Amino acid sequence: MAPVKVASVQAASVAYDLHASVAKLLPLVKEAAQAGARLAVFPEAYLGAYPRHLDFKIGARTDENREWFSRYVKAAVKIPDGAEGVAWLSANEEDIGEDGDFWAFQQLCKAARDNKINLSVGIIERSLVGATLWCSNVLISDGGVLLSKHRKLQPTAAERIVWSQGHVTNEPGLPNSGLAHTDNLAVAPTSIGKIGGLICWENFMPLARYALYQKGVEIYTAPTADGRPTWTPLLQSIAQEGRCFVVSANQYHGTTDFPSDYPANISRAGGAKEDVWCRGGSSIVDPLGNILAGPLWDKEGILYADIDIDTIIGAKLDFDPVGHYARSDILSLQIKQ
Amino acid sequence: MAPVKVASVQAASVAYDLHASVAKLLPLVKEAAQAGARLAVFPEAYLGAYPRHLDFKIGARTDENREWFSRYVKAAVKIPDGAEGVAWLSANEEDIGEDGDFWAFQQLCKAARDNKINLSVGIIERSLVGATLWCSNVLISDGGVLLSKHRKLQPTAAERIVWSQGHVTNEPGLPNSGLAHTDNLAVAPTSIGKIGGLICWENFMPLARYALYQKGVEIYTAPTADGRPTWTPLLQSIAQEGRCFVVSANQYHGTTDFPSDYPANISRAGGAKEDVWCRGGSSIVDPLGNILAGPLWDKEGILYADIDIDTIIGAKLDFDPVGHYARSDILSLQIKQ
Amino acid sequence: MAPVKVASVQAASVAYDLHASVAKLLPLVKEAAQAGARLAVFPEAYLGAYPRHLDFKIGARTDENREWFSRYVKAAVKIPDGAEGVAWLSANEEDIGEDGDFWAFQQLCKAARDNKINLSVGIIERSLVGATLWCSNVLISDGGVLLSKHRKLQPTAAERIVWSQGHVTNEPGLPNSGLAHTDNLAVAPTSIGKIGGLICWENFMPLARYALYQKGVEIYTAPTADGRPTWTPLLQSIAQEGRCFVVSANQYHGTTDFPSDYPANISRAGGAKEDVWCRGGSSIVDPLGNILAGPLWDKEGILYADIDIDTIIGAKLDFDPVGHYARSDILSLQIKQ
Amino acid sequence: MAPVKVASVQAASVAYDLHASVAKLLPLVKEAAQAGARLAVFPEAYLGAYPRHLDFKIGARTDENREWFSRYVKAAVKIPDGAEGVAWLSANEEDIGEDGDFWAFQQLCKAARDNKINLSVGIIERSLVGATLWCSNVLISDGGVLLSKHRKLQPTAAERIVWSQGHVTNEPGLPNSGLAHTDNLAVAPTSIGKIGGLICWENFMPLARYALYQKGVEIYTAPTADGRPTWTPLLQSIAQEGRCFVVSANQYHGTTDFPSDYPANISRAGGAKEDVWCRGGSSIVDPLGNILAGPLWDKEGILYADIDIDTIIGAKLDFDPVGHYARSDILSLQIKQ
Amino acid sequence: MAPVKVASVQAASVAYDLHASVAKLLPLVKEAAQAGARLAVFPEAYLGAYPRHLDFKIGARTDENREWFSRYVKAAVKIPDGAEGVAWLSANEEDIGEDGDFWAFQQLCKAARDNKINLSVGIIERSLVGATLWCSNVLISDGGVLLSKHRKLQPTAAERIVWSQGHVTNEPGLPNSGLAHTDNLAVAPTSIGKIGGLICWENFMPLARYALYQKGVEIYTAPTADGRPTWTPLLQSIAQEGRCFVVSANQYHGTTDFPSDYPANISRAGGAKEDVWCRGGSSIVDPLGNILAGPLWDKEGILYADIDIDTIIGAKLDFDPVGHYARSDILSLQIKQ
Amino acid sequence: MAPVKVASVQAASVAYDLHASVAKLLPLVKEAAQAGARLAVFPEAYLGAYPRHLDFKIGARTDENREWFSRYVKAAVKIPDGAEGVAWLSANEEDIGEDGDFWAFQQLCKAARDNKINLSVGIIERSLVGATLWCSNVLISDGGVLLSKHRKLQPTAAERIVWSQGHVTNEPGLPNSGLAHTDNLAVAPTSIGKIGGLICWENFMPLARYALYQKGVEIYTAPTADGRPTWTPLLQSIAQEGRCFVVSANQYHGTTDFPSDYPANISRAGGAKEDVWCRGGSSIVDPLGNILAGPLWDKEGILYADIDIDTIIGAKLDFDPVGHYARSDILSLQIKQ
Repeated sequence: MAPVKVASVQAASVAYDLHASVAKLLPLVKEAAQAGARLAVFPEAYLGAYPRHLDFKIGARTDENREWFSRYVKAAVKIPDGAEGVAWLSANEEDIGEDGDFWAFQQLCKAARDNKINLSVGIIERSLVGATLWCSNVLISDGGVLLSKHRKLQPTAAERIVWSQGHVTNEPGLPNSGLAHTDNLAVAPTSIGKIGGLICWENFMPLARYALYQKGVEIYTAPTADGRPTWTPLLQSIAQEGRCFVVSANQYHGTTDFPSDYPANISRAGGAKEDVWCRGGSSIVDPLGNILAGPLWDKEGILYADIDIDTIIGAKLDFDPVGHYARSDILSLQIKQ
Repeated sequence: MAPVKVASVQAASVAYDLHASVAKLLPLVKEAAQAGARLAVFPEAYLGAYPRHLDFKIGARTDENREWFSRYVKAAVKIPDGAEGVAWLSANEEDIGEDGDFWAFQQLCKAARDNKINLSVGIIERSLVGATLWCSNVLISDGGVLLSKHRKLQPTAAERIVWSQGHVTNEPGLPNSGLAHTDNLAVAPTSIGKIGGLICWENFMPLARYALYQKGVEIYTAPTADGRPTWTPLLQSIAQEGRCFVVSANQYHGTTDFPSDYPANISRAGGAKEDVWCRGGSSIVDPLGNILAGPLWDKEGILYADIDIDTIIGAKLDFDPVGHYARSDILSLQIKQ
Repeated sequence: MAPVKVASVQAASVAYDLHASVAKLLPLVKEAAQAGARLAVFPEAYLGAYPRHLDFKIGARTDENREWFSRYVKAAVKIPDGAEGVAWLSANEEDIGEDGDFWAFQQLCKAARDNKINLSVGIIERSLVGATLWCSNVLISDGGVLLSKHRKLQPTAAERIVWSQGHVTNEPGLPNSGLAHTDNLAVAPTSIGKIGGLICWENFMPLARYALYQKGVEIYTAPTADGRPTWTPLLQSIAQEGRCFVVSANQYHGTTDFPSDYPANISRAGGAKEDVWCRGGSSIVDPLGNILAGPLWDKEGILYADIDIDTIIGAKLDFDPVGHYARSDILSLQIKQ
Repeated sequence: MAPVKVASVQAASVAYDLHASVAKLLPLVKEAAQAGARLAVFPEAYLGAYPRHLDFKIGARTDENREWFSRYVKAAVKIPDGAEGVAWLSANEEDIGEDGDFWAFQQLCKAARDNKINLSVGIIERSLVGATLWCSNVLISDGGVLLSKHRKLQPTAAERIVWSQGHVTNEPGLPNSGLAHTDNLAVAPTSIGKIGGLICWENFMPLARYALYQKGVEIYTAPTADGRPTWTPLLQSIAQEGRCFVVSANQYHGTTDFPSDYPANISRAGGAKEDVWCRGGSSIVDPLGNILAGPLWDKEGILYADIDIDTIIGAKLDFDPVGHYARSDILSLQIKQ
Repeated sequence: MAPVKVASVQAASVAYDLHASVAKLLPLVKEAAQAGARLAVFPEAYLGAYPRHLDFKIGARTDENREWFSRYVKAAVKIPDGAEGVAWLSANEEDIGEDGDFWAFQQLCKAARDNKINLSVGIIERSLVGATLWCSNVLISDGGVLLSKHRKLQPTAAERIVWSQGHVTNEPGLPNSGLAHTDNLAVAPTSIGKIGGLICWENFMPLARYALYQKGVEIYTAPTADGRPTWTPLLQSIAQEGRCFVVSANQYHGTTDFPSDYPANISRAGGAKEDVWCRGGSSIVDPLGNILAGPLWDKEGILYADIDIDTIIGAKLDFDPVGHYARSDILSLQIKQ
Repeated sequence: MAPVKVASVQAASVAYDLHASVAKLLPLVKEAAQAGARLAVFPEAYLGAYPRHLDFKIGARTDENREWFSRYVKAAVKIPDGAEGVAWLSANEEDIGEDGDFWAFQQLCKAARDNKINLSVGIIERSLVGATLWCSNVLISDGGVLLSKHRKLQPTAAERIVWSQGHVTNEPGLPNSGLAHTDNLAVAPTSIGKIGGLICWENFMPLARYALYQKGVEIYTAPTADGRPTWTPLLQSIAQEGRCFVVSANQYHGTTDFPSDYPANISRAGGAKEDVWCRGGSSIVDPLGNILAGPLWDKEGILYADIDIDTIIGAKLDFDPVGHYARSDILSLQIKQ
């Protein structure tokens, strides 16, 4: 296979505004595709918002808490049951309308298909019933087909107040649908290689990464909200450890990317994008740990790199995490579904 | 049971070219079958190549190392999970195509079935994920069924760089498949007797051999890459020690059997088959240590011998390694799976 | 516990010369102790040599290979059976003599005790019988007691020719001694915290690291021979992932640190320390991934850092790899002894 | 250690005549020592006789059987309890007299000491009470000290009628003597290396050999009575497998070496040494399986070879049966004492 | 418990012909049952043959030896692993066919069940792998369940060439089966009392007998091949010493019970049953040493005696070998498993 | 050694009259010696009396009981401390007088020496202090030296009222004498072979016999008081089991051999030797179980047999209870001193 170009999109979402966020995403997809990219990775929670600086106290929920949670749920994305791997878009070509349940999902699928680009997009996923949320990553093929949906296994710290945990498999949102569970730790074959990944600090979980290595991940996507310099070495380590390409995308966002009445905006004086809440740091790394693009700090932008999947085998000459270097005779991962 | 004819095929593989090696194997199988052989044993790494004279230094891998490893992986054979003992071929009759994952395996099964001959073939086995390799021996029945797959337990010296270790059992290549581990030290009943074996210098491992004796091996196959005169006495000793027939096949190969751009070819002047890298030495031995055929040196060829399994009992009158001569009251083999 | 000073010693060993290497080690231990360090970490294979650039070909061992292997074995260190956790030194105070089996080990114990410093030293360990070697790390308390011995689980590439694998536990070197197996993945309590670690590329093994996290490692030692810039981010990732301090020591060595008749010296023109074979890169990292000292490139030297074990708990607020962030309900490590 | 000369003595014993056999042994020891040998290995049953062609039927013992058994017992050697490793000879310098219990043993110790040569001598050992015999090998140091006594674990075929089995340890011959059991699978350090061995077809027992490898045998003695050409390859295989020198000694004997009234002599016509009952085949082999001396066929004689123990380490570069090539993680030997 | 009738069957087996021997056994079982016997004891080696007069020489096995050993192995009986104490027959009701592995065993179980009689039958037992044989005694309940299998601990004289030793426990025939060892010195409760025993000259082993006394044997079975008058007093002594009933069965056999091409038949002139090779001597003895039936000499036949288990207690008034008369304060039996 | 004659003396003692018994013994010794015997064995309790028919009730001792016990004690024999193996007689040549402590013992020694005959005599042994008795057997050399003294380990039934138990060793009769314990299960070398033995029903104790076999007994003496026909087969079994000669002596006695006021005499009508209380049954048996002399019934007399110790080795060809047939790997006798 010839080398292909991949893109990491560093951009702020329009927090708590699904429609505006989708509207901002579409031209970015087009730009990346026109630059020749065959894959574009968007940051964690790009659709829905990374609810930075929401404030909770232990032992008491305020009305303000409830109100903002409610707005947050409404800005989240619903994913249709049973869409993985099937021609859902072909069967749902008609415009759903911005208020329709699967409008945002339909938009993503169309953008991927129309631009012939694979998409990995961080979203806030909303339960088909109830008000439960997950921090998810959807992988959509360049044919517009949902390949996999990954729900973050373990939210970090206060994220646990608003996001639920993912599991090994995803049960259908509508109970008794007869649909099978789908793989929440999927590695999906695409036109450019096998793609899988984790979200933000899950990437620190050795066993979760190992589950992906066992499935032969070649392009590892790591949408994140961690804007510290210590994020970069993690990406390099995953690349070396997993003998895979790593594409990580983060938001560059601050005060102005959130509603003006957002509690964290209200509690501060002044305005404009004076305060940066997340510096970015998106990067693309090769399987020997060399940084191909980025880290991009302190601005929005799209990173590109040409990657050659075929070099992975050579990289595994001296390290194959689930093969010759695994010591599977003594150490193994046990997954309980 | 009447005596049967068995064959040891001494031939070079077309190194690093899976398709050409398969193409060279098929007429050899046919020739052996037409000569009346009920079993044909091929050398270690016949499919894939014995990567002789690949050069590695401790503490540094070169780009050339990675490139040739990559070519080597691509010339290796994939074995479908769960194929042992089931009618995999019947369920996979359609031509897979040379690029299909299990093409070479399908060819072996068809060759065995169509020629009504049991096959023991040394292959380089490729992990279903990752880029890990094993030096394996597949035993295929004259009905075209994979009976067992043995991965070399312990590669020798620099082989350890490119080949992984086998274990007591083989885990499925696709993790969490629900398939059971298969026996990596199997002794399989066939139409002509119980067949098992080890590969190359594993045959020097007393405890590994003992594990096969405990399973009642009658025809012990020993594909090898050791072309020294000191290999022959080992075969005679195994035969006597195990009270079994031993069929050992080695490659006769040299410079022209490897690609012209092969490092070891480039580093030398001149061409043609001037340099012999492995002199062969294939042999067939009876349970009392007498050589029935071979050793064949310095050329390709097929050795034949008529063997009578029924003489094994008589040979065990005075030595049964796992029975009356074992002193199992004081000495025993412990296997940790 | 008050912060304590730890040291990472970047130095070349006197390759293939055990006595000279010990002679070089002793003043370095003293220097570190006098600078106030409570722990000194020495590089991989400091005693014995990292046999860089030894050259092996697949399928053939030369007389030169055997001769240098023989020299290598003789420069290796023997560790007495059953010494872990007991007052071996008190019972073996008398000078063993440079040719005695446990001379080097005795020197290490005395150096630790006499300088009141904990030592983590990369050694080449020699089997008590046979000629098998392991790349090991011995941890010796500031009282001169061997706390643990770790044998590298998986040598990398051509290292596999000269070093054997470690396992989950270490069997006694003298079989049927009645001694218990010792833990090969130990995390030992010391006067300054719980110390454990892996050697060189093992550190890329997610499951092996996880085994140490499960035992509560606080100071993670990582002797290495990897002198590339991509080593540093791995250390930062381990620190963050494991929420522990990481102390990594590498050799800075080149042509003149190896015997003049060393094959890799003979095969090159010129002399002096012109050729650097390993640039170093020793570092000390805190549990949030921040580099406290180093990386030290292109020279010998001792790095120091003051570390405060008590900060580990705070660092685990948002990530505890084997606790609240582990998802042990679905993912677990299975260790087979 | 400089290379040393070792000797394998191929000679017939004076069957059923202990005194004559000792008388024949003494000058052979002297000859070997004067030729510079530091070790002389004598054949199986050299003192006592290999009772070749004694004839037994299942389910019936004849008077002739009992009579010859009685003669055989009387020609056997008694070994004093507790003599291993102690200065028995110093405490028993006085001539015991040919009818004394330990006369033959004393002669052996004196021959070894006076000629400054290590001796490994196959003897028929007699129980200190009862009429039980073992086929044993005594190893006596060049200081005249019994280093070890090995009783054949498993006699072959009809040997089982006259010889008892050895065990893992040897119990004292006088019960309740308070003496400890001695090691029946000993590998003893000597002035020229670690010596151990098995007798005749025991050498085909993989687990028994493995027990010796685990003790680090360097010079493996294999007294035998097997005079077939298939014995030689076994020696070569043991040498390669165990990475040790192998010294095998057999008798060259026939009709005239046995009493004229010996049943097998009576049952044949003619006389003189017309009938050869055992062709010899003594050999000395190096750790790579190369034959250094012999096989010597069809005559008596002493074989010599210069062996260099220090080459063993190099030979273990690519194979160490109990070390790096052992796969002790999955395969181990269990010894039940 | 009321007195019960027991039977000792003195009959020749059809030597070396398993099917014919079974065919001869079945009506004898029926006859004994119809006479009211609740237990029938058959001689040593009834199934398989006592290989009387097979001729072996020390130091040489002939082709004829090997050929007859091979025939002997094929006439032996295989016992399924794990059948002791379980309803093997119920799970294996279908006819196995004469060539099936466990055909003879199934026939014995059916005969016991269908005739409602306990059976103790001397058999030649064949290893489930290899060509090792044991001289065994199977005890089958009147419900058709295998209660115990005893392998002769120590074959006598030339028997050692063809039979292996039993141990304290029997390991499963298929290694690593996970099945537990079974008791080789069992005393099994039956519908008529506790039954145990030894075979032929084992009965002279004081310690082995003692092991059975310690388990409370009430009916001691002693199948034998010793047809001398000195056998009878041994039975009387065992009965007195063990305070138990003793039932001993021997074959009455001669030339015509063996194949016409049997070596011992060929070596003699003439035919018919002229030569008697074993005179019989079967007997039944009471716990005070009185002979209740037999000895039966020089013909086939079934002996019967009515025995009253309840008299054993009275007989132990003055002698209880493992109780009041044992002096267990100073003398005890140590069994090493 | 040439065959020697041995004698078994069947005679009644003069019960309860030590002096008369000694007086009756002396001519019998002379007679045996003159007939050429080198050993004479006398029955159990020959000196002192076998107190047949003494009557005891549980829970009550009568005055008559006490009186007869008192007479019994007075008729018993005292053995000097420390006499075993030393020249006691030489130091005590002077006539002790009938009332002297060691008079009877001195008589025995003199009889043995003067007639140059070995003696084994059943005696009632009296404690040197107190009124404890043992049923003992003294073995006195043909030089008049006490070789061993054996106290019956376990009296039978009502014997337990008057006799105490022996132990493994005999403590000196005078406490704090500083003398060592002597062996109570001794086998002593004599001029005609190794002699040991047990008394009466002890001979049924398998472990006690085994203790003697372990010491190499060649002539086994069995003084007894059992006059039933079932005694004979025990002797034959011991001979076969122990591969030794057995010499058993019993009293032929009845009413007239006891005092006329003896309770059992008083309670019956009539007199003379009408009532026989013990029929005798003395015998001599060879190591294959053949009866050489006896059993002698219903009269007094001396049995003779010529025995050839040298045939023992031949007899051990096929059975050695403590050697090749012992299975000492699994069964052993533990003796607690």
